[in-house]
Amino acid sequence: MKAEIIAVGSELLLGQISNTNARFISSQLAELGIDVYYHTVVGDNPNRLVDSIKIAENRADLIIFSGGLGPTKDDLTKETISKHLNKNLVLDHHALIYIEDFFKRMNRKMTENNKKQALVLEGCTVLENKHGMAPGMFLSTKTHSYILLPGPPKEMEPMFQFEAKPILSKLLHNESIIKSHVIRFYGIGEAELETEVQDLLHNQTNPTLAPLASDGEVTLRLTAKSDTEEEAWKLIDAMQTEIFNRLGKFVYGYNNDSLASKLRDILVENNLTISAAESMTAGLFQSELAAVSGMGQALVGGMITYTEDIKIKQLGVKETTIKEFSVVSSPCAEEMAVRVKEKFGTNIGVGITGAAGPDGHGGQPAGTVWIGIAIDDSAPVSYKLNLSGMRNTNRLRAVKFTIHYLIRLLHDQGL
Amino acid sequence: MKAEIIAVGSELLLGQISNTNARFISSQLAELGIDVYYHTVVGDNPNRLVDSIKIAENRADLIIFSGGLGPTKDDLTKETISKHLNKNLVLDHHALIYIEDFFKRMNRKMTENNKKQALVLEGCTVLENKHGMAPGMFLSTKTHSYILLPGPPKEMEPMFQFEAKPILSKLLHNESIIKSHVIRFYGIGEAELETEVQDLLHNQTNPTLAPLASDGEVTLRLTAKSDTEEEAWKLIDAMQTEIFNRLGKFVYGYNNDSLASKLRDILVENNLTISAAESMTAGLFQSELAAVSGMGQALVGGMITYTEDIKIKQLGVKETTIKEFSVVSSPCAEEMAVRVKEKFGTNIGVGITGAAGPDGHGGQPAGTVWIGIAIDDSAPVSYKLNLSGMRNTNRLRAVKFTIHYLIRLLHDQGL
Repeated sequence: MKAEIIAVGSELLLGQISNTNARFISSQLAELGIDVYYHTVVGDNPNRLVDSIKIAENRADLIIFSGGLGPTKDDLTKETISKHLNKNLVLDHHALIYIEDFFKRMNRKMTENNKKQALVLEGCTVLENKHGMAPGMFLSTKTHSYILLPGPPKEMEPMFQFEAKPILSKLLHNESIIKSHVIRFYGIGEAELETEVQDLLHNQTNPTLAPLASDGEVTLRLTAKSDTEEEAWKLIDAMQTEIFNRLGKFVYGYNNDSLASKLRDILVENNLTISAAESMTAGLFQSELAAVSGMGQALVGGMITYTEDIKIKQLGVKETTIKEFSVVSSPCAEEMAVRVKEKFGTNIGVGITGAAGPDGHGGQPAGTVWIGIAIDDSAPVSYKLNLSGMRNTNRLRAVKFTIHYLIRLLHDQGL
Repeated sequence: MKAEIIAVGSELLLGQISNTNARFISSQLAELGIDVYYHTVVGDNPNRLVDSIKIAENRADLIIFSGGLGPTKDDLTKETISKHLNKNLVLDHHALIYIEDFFKRMNRKMTENNKKQALVLEGCTVLENKHGMAPGMFLSTKTHSYILLPGPPKEMEPMFQFEAKPILSKLLHNESIIKSHVIRFYGIGEAELETEVQDLLHNQTNPTLAPLASDGEVTLRLTAKSDTEEEAWKLIDAMQTEIFNRLGKFVYGYNNDSLASKLRDILVENNLTISAAESMTAGLFQSELAAVSGMGQALVGGMITYTEDIKIKQLGVKETTIKEFSVVSSPCAEEMAVRVKEKFGTNIGVGITGAAGPDGHGGQPAGTVWIGIAIDDSAPVSYKLNLSGMRNTNRLRAVKFTIHYLIRLLHDQGL
């Protein structure tokens, strides 16, 4: 099965947003073993959309659309496909009720044009939109399959995963089984990782190996094809063992793990609580932890101590520490960690202080970060980062590194 | 002039990366007033690349390629175009010297395949690559113009801006001036906004109007074309006045403004300080503020009070308040705002408490949020949100709404 993804929206052609939907859908199709040969982006123009559909029908079996299902006049994907395939648009009562409910819950007035969102192509399978109003559609003709998805990623992604993907899996029923497994690394660069597994990358057949870097992390996706699920996992296991022998110390997790979810698992399993005092990251560390559900068992709370005055008066860092060593220093980070741990009565205390940029801070150049960690009654430890990114990249890197550093410290204690 | 952007690279079709190059190039072309009708992504396959070029030549005058100029066997963009246009590849000595220097500076041995990067299409204008090795190319035939750019954004972006854009500007010499202006709205949905300006959208000619929604915000881009810059701004001003008459109360800023930068401007101008006590958002509100540089003058710090115990013992919320009204309630949010304001000695205190989801909290269903705000000695106020998204969407929406709510409250006080 060959697929093409057509994203519809003039905002894409104006460069207002990136076509992240094509990336998401492509990675999902790769997992299913469906080849994607082209992505197309076309504006909110029915003639050019029809031209794109005709070209796609010549070179793909499955055409996936994203965008243009909304309530406005610009939204014309289903109207255009309706004409092109000669299928009527019919009202989906279930979707209409959902849309009406949506407005009630939001306490907003429903305008007439919103009803248009409940129209679907005759004979299609309706794909439920649990995070927005416009439903999606799956439609098969004698020659092609069509999937229509909404444009906003928050609506499109769960709809694809939970509504469209199962339908595609069924369609592929008789083909070989594809299994995919992602190994997650931290503390090693992409180039360095590739050098370590160069021979495996070069000779890859089954499973295939695909490295990818983002936000300071590197992942390696292993994809195996086989007649049985068991055999596919066997192929993946053998390759994983080989990779582990070379790079095991950099592996922090798998698949949908994140540094934060990994930390949560360790904390919750060992009944540990955590608090943090954040300066430069101003709450981003704790917010990243809280982004993972179930963190409430471990994360108690903490402080954001943006000014020196607050560090001293509210948190209890000694004035002499700041005067002697500066606010961006190992002693200050460690004292922040110890004080917040005591104040909030947790097992672990974290202190983050630094200069996010663009300017320096506390006598240190932009990008300098000190991370202090105190665990129970052990002496606090600290680590210095020298980051070179822009302000918010530095803040996020500092947070990711802090989580990684803490995981390693807990790991060293046998947790 | 009509343009099409062709990105070449199997990693795009596998969903390993997003086609951010197309977004960047499109936004640059929009500034030049060049219409982009299609984006195409094609893999590292010469036959499919030639097919894409033929399709693009039928519908565009200017074809811009990104990717496939590197040293490896997969990199075949210029080789394919060379065959397709019947133009030889010739060695560019300047580029070769640059590549050799590059290896010397990096203290690495130059492998033979790297020389391939110095080959360019006969008769082209070479575009210098200041951040990598592969040069770009500009080539004109009787019917079309072609621009070849490298794939890595940090090489492509400066090359486009400083090498390709001036060439395109010259080509366009006699065409009109394009000016673009974005109005930013909060507190109104896309559909509702479009209903209010339906007639303007319907009759748009010059300026054109393009609405766009994301993360709870809506923007309206006004683009005017004229012979002089002054005339273009006049056209935009007239339309803006009309939009203001209808929707002024929802406008919070323009162009690159964000809710947080807007709030910073008001706080700094009026010498106001702010602190926050966050439960459900766990630091995200303060982190969003700190993401804007210059917020240090206003943001003092605050607390993350994730548990009831910490709300009571560290922040000083009355136990009876939580018992009587629950932890997700107007009195609790207001008390959090007042306590943090007092504790941190700021003009403004913010309290955010809610159930992010997937589960309910404090007897309230997932998505319920109470935002409390205390300003100086005025009585605290609060607002209830009923959100319907996933956990982290709800957290971000709550933060954005809090900033908006505070801007409105300050605005009502004449600030």
